[in-house]
Amino acid sequence: MKATILHGPGDVRYESVSDPKIEKPTDAIIKLSATCICGSDLWPYRGLSKQDGPAHMGHEYCGVVVEVGAAVKTVKPGQFVVGSFCLSDNTCPHCAFGFHSSCAQGEFMTGAQAPYARVPLADGTLVATAEMPDAAMIPHMLAVSDVLGTGWYAADAAQVRKGGTVVVVGDGAVGLMGVLAASQMGAERVIAMSRHAPRQQLAREFGATDIVAERGAEGIARIMELTDGVGAESVLECVGLAESMEQAMGVCRPGGTIGYVGLPHGVNFDSEKLFYGQRRMLGGPAPVRRFLPDLMDRVLQGAIQPGKVFDLTLPLAEVAEGYKAMDERRAIKTLLRVE
Amino acid sequence: MKATILHGPGDVRYESVSDPKIEKPTDAIIKLSATCICGSDLWPYRGLSKQDGPAHMGHEYCGVVVEVGAAVKTVKPGQFVVGSFCLSDNTCPHCAFGFHSSCAQGEFMTGAQAPYARVPLADGTLVATAEMPDAAMIPHMLAVSDVLGTGWYAADAAQVRKGGTVVVVGDGAVGLMGVLAASQMGAERVIAMSRHAPRQQLAREFGATDIVAERGAEGIARIMELTDGVGAESVLECVGLAESMEQAMGVCRPGGTIGYVGLPHGVNFDSEKLFYGQRRMLGGPAPVRRFLPDLMDRVLQGAIQPGKVFDLTLPLAEVAEGYKAMDERRAIKTLLRVE
Repeated sequence: MKATILHGPGDVRYESVSDPKIEKPTDAIIKLSATCICGSDLWPYRGLSKQDGPAHMGHEYCGVVVEVGAAVKTVKPGQFVVGSFCLSDNTCPHCAFGFHSSCAQGEFMTGAQAPYARVPLADGTLVATAEMPDAAMIPHMLAVSDVLGTGWYAADAAQVRKGGTVVVVGDGAVGLMGVLAASQMGAERVIAMSRHAPRQQLAREFGATDIVAERGAEGIARIMELTDGVGAESVLECVGLAESMEQAMGVCRPGGTIGYVGLPHGVNFDSEKLFYGQRRMLGGPAPVRRFLPDLMDRVLQGAIQPGKVFDLTLPLAEVAEGYKAMDERRAIKTLLRVE
Repeated sequence: MKATILHGPGDVRYESVSDPKIEKPTDAIIKLSATCICGSDLWPYRGLSKQDGPAHMGHEYCGVVVEVGAAVKTVKPGQFVVGSFCLSDNTCPHCAFGFHSSCAQGEFMTGAQAPYARVPLADGTLVATAEMPDAAMIPHMLAVSDVLGTGWYAADAAQVRKGGTVVVVGDGAVGLMGVLAASQMGAERVIAMSRHAPRQQLAREFGATDIVAERGAEGIARIMELTDGVGAESVLECVGLAESMEQAMGVCRPGGTIGYVGLPHGVNFDSEKLFYGQRRMLGGPAPVRRFLPDLMDRVLQGAIQPGKVFDLTLPLAEVAEGYKAMDERRAIKTLLRVE
């Protein structure tokens, strides 16, 4: 088959590779219903994270099981499944504690920007639906796999509560999903920081009650004004840069919580400032598996439409253009159609 | 009157000063029933924190109100009161949120190592008892003012829960109070890290179920062994040094929480390590006022005896020897008797 390989910065190719096959008895092979490009795929694409040789890309996926290893018990060929980008056994103490992204056997999914993919730890990672979903559901189900799950975790880590005031820093796909999550969790006020009209519009559709276009000190001042000088009790940091973390710190009230899901690049936590500021912090790769059943239900019941975050759809064979469009910020997030 | 003045590193004097008087209508003057020396008093005593000129020392206190300003409504002369080392109005949004140590009008108490002291923001800071407590209760009530309140906050910030596993890093007075707090909150396992026999003994009295004498990598390995390789869900960091924070990180399970109450000195948070480690963090000066009524009740009902943490009692006039004993680690914490 053909699949997506990153050869080096800016060099994405859709080219021939070996078909994935069962390597361990806990593996499953799925036929992708759709796949997509993650903001985190842009780090190596931009040469900003180290890469050792050509890499199979893609970790967001949903599709139909075509084959399972001998030890797989909970999913079977013919079932539609969604999995997390963090592979997990769902039985170790960390999974039992809800932190599947720290699973004792955990690894990260790869090779999902392809027509077929191998999913290790299939029993612990994949969740099957009772029925085959309609084609219209596919983008929404795909979003659950990482981008929604990550935004949801940001809100969960930030301890968003019913009636609370929430600020979302970052209007990328994850930030927009964070807005949706905070809104679903019953926050009364969801303030999205965004300078781009189409993203502001999408943030409103996902439940933002206020938009703040200013950044830096001005952005902080604007939010303090909106919150009567108090700040927000929950802040979702969905970028991972020093500026965005600074922004998050600046708008979080003492005793409030910052959930951060952007892998920190050049972020420095000032321990004394954190101490006196009394900000609670929790970040990390999202334990999406914890949320999968609930989020898949919400999608299937039509309660949420996270797939709206895809503003560009391309055939998988044009994956290189998908990367380019996201790199140049022409697209928020690219869905790749698998024929 | 005479009071405790720090003139410079190692130079504590009990000397004549002006009597405290009402300066603002929200002030109260109390006659101290007892006072004590805090671990944090040792920072300037050791020349490790900057000092501008002679400083009135002491921020832990309980006693009898002798005078109140015109605006004070909730306490009156003759009442026995305990207050927090963090002065607070108890009405601003941060106090209402339980973070009195970030009070909009907040300041730190000072001048309490003296027979009389002025307490600003008296209505918001002081809590009176219904009756005059017995003399035997004084050390326990005094402990509530800071050292117990701070240990309690460490446990609260670390989200200690019934049945949970807790590690306390630091066997100073605050760490020992953290052990007591975790035990009172219903933790099933409270592991105290301590190398000193008398402190180990006290930790056991306060509810420690396990003692780990090893430090560094060995200490972490020992705790991982005790917790079946998982780590603790709640870790109380009660020191504030790089080594102790490293220790706390090393024994906290993913998704677990570190409550840190030692003002960080030279602590550096590695943002990427925090991200992948998925440790939740909350620290700060303790909002003791939030806990005061509950802790005073526990003391008066005889449920807890936090005053056991005082292992040296001196007349106030010998305060200099009290500092020396704590500096040389001959005493865990010095109570100063006020005649």
